[in-house]
Amino acid sequence: MRVVDLIELKRDGKEIPANEMKEFVDAVVRKDVPEYQTAAFLMAVYFRGMLPDELVAYTQAMLYSGDTMSLKSLKDHYKVDKHSTGGVGDKVSLTLAPMVAACGPVIPMISGRGLGHTGGTLDKLESIPGYRSTLTPEEFLRQSGEVGVCVVGQSKDLAPADKRLYALRDVTGTVPSIPLITSSILSKKLAEGAGTLVFDVKCGSGAFCRTYEMAKELATTMIAIGRNMGRNMAACITAMDQPLGRTAGNALEIRESVETLHGHGPADVEELTLALGAKMLVLAGVARSDFEARATLRCNLASGAA
Amino acid sequence: MRVVDLIELKRDGKEIPANEMKEFVDAVVRKDVPEYQTAAFLMAVYFRGMLPDELVAYTQAMLYSGDTMSLKSLKDHYKVDKHSTGGVGDKVSLTLAPMVAACGPVIPMISGRGLGHTGGTLDKLESIPGYRSTLTPEEFLRQSGEVGVCVVGQSKDLAPADKRLYALRDVTGTVPSIPLITSSILSKKLAEGAGTLVFDVKCGSGAFCRTYEMAKELATTMIAIGRNMGRNMAACITAMDQPLGRTAGNALEIRESVETLHGHGPADVEELTLALGAKMLVLAGVARSDFEARATLRCNLASGAA
Repeated sequence: MRVVDLIELKRDGKEIPANEMKEFVDAVVRKDVPEYQTAAFLMAVYFRGMLPDELVAYTQAMLYSGDTMSLKSLKDHYKVDKHSTGGVGDKVSLTLAPMVAACGPVIPMISGRGLGHTGGTLDKLESIPGYRSTLTPEEFLRQSGEVGVCVVGQSKDLAPADKRLYALRDVTGTVPSIPLITSSILSKKLAEGAGTLVFDVKCGSGAFCRTYEMAKELATTMIAIGRNMGRNMAACITAMDQPLGRTAGNALEIRESVETLHGHGPADVEELTLALGAKMLVLAGVARSDFEARATLRCNLASGAA
Repeated sequence: MRVVDLIELKRDGKEIPANEMKEFVDAVVRKDVPEYQTAAFLMAVYFRGMLPDELVAYTQAMLYSGDTMSLKSLKDHYKVDKHSTGGVGDKVSLTLAPMVAACGPVIPMISGRGLGHTGGTLDKLESIPGYRSTLTPEEFLRQSGEVGVCVVGQSKDLAPADKRLYALRDVTGTVPSIPLITSSILSKKLAEGAGTLVFDVKCGSGAFCRTYEMAKELATTMIAIGRNMGRNMAACITAMDQPLGRTAGNALEIRESVETLHGHGPADVEELTLALGAKMLVLAGVARSDFEARATLRCNLASGAA
């Protein structure tokens, strides 16, 4: 199929066959598609969306556009990861990872840098003198197995299709599209080897999803596509109308996270950590109910195990 | 305004101020806008359309993106031109121009080459041995004044913005958009100096406008924008479900046109010529009614004056 035919199919709201979608993404990564055609395609997707089969094919093609990591060597552990759409003061990865790890599962977490005006987990961790965020895949897997939690930056060339497509979306007004966001997040997270994943979809005036309806659509789409691709998925929709916790800023947020782990954190940070942690424990099969999961998490918080 | 902001305004269906629209088109012509941004803009226009004020600003900017011709030296004449969206066997320019000219108005016509599978008026005329389709602007104006009709190809760099934008639309699935078609046709025709213009909007299975509704929308938009820009405009919506006349092919169509001017042409070619000619005569102020205009045209056909 010529690329212009594929653009016209999408423009007219007709279904693009899975193999054509894969060929298109592969050609984009090889730079065989001019950027003006990719841009027109992205804008057509903005208006027309994607059918579930299209979105699975598109996400799969992005996922396998580069290297992928395998967490199979951690085979005796429950492995679970979370992804957040982010917001000011959101330091929950820092409290969540040790709290969940203290309950048994392994949290092999590949985190990102700041995006827009919100800081990234990696930036925050690097305010700790001596913190090294770049590990080899072997070091990453060994530490995850030994310590139960490991937070690093991306070291391999994961999902290069997303890098190209995101750069283009950023300058063509095609960032805020549910299927494009879904494929971007999922392709990266799945390339990192995540098999069990909890999404924190922020909702409110400080979030990308301004309305509950939009947050719900994003959460539903991510779960549907992730499950379709054989992954174990759940999502929480959480408020982001004001900064989370009391502090914003890399070193300050590290201190607040440590305080939370000591049981003296702000109520909203603790509550969000418990809510997401409970989802993760249930999804990983470590707890049978939200009630049981929260009890275990509170226990580990009170005992200092977290 | 940054180009991405302009794309987002259009994407969200908000109005782009006239001066921003002009700056954008000027920057496109200077190649200061990356083609991927122009492509995203065009696709957003495909879905959102343009408000009348936006479309006037966009068309004006395209019209003045290069040279413009002036027909002012033909000041003692009624000047009138026609444009057709084209179709197989449409040879009406060849019969229409002399028939209308025989009634008084001057027809300074700048015609095009074939587009897609339909032949252009110039291609047809060049099947006459010795026909020269490239005249200097001075020759063009002198012949228009002396003979009353002159059909030539474009000799100046008219509406270069349309050339760039059309090339991009062709490969990004953004050709079939009413505002983009309107601005493309009007910017070229007005750059050629046309002040009084009749559109022949073809409608049917062999035309770009498949349905009457689409043809009507295109005709209405062209008239509204043209009038808004101070031009004298009218349109006919005519059937294009089968080839016009008995022949298709450059030399054959010239012969059929001569036969029509001798009064022995196919009924559909003669009727379409009369219908468009009558509109042109009324619009140019040479006839007071369609009835009177048709009588004059028939007279000149019967007498051999055409």
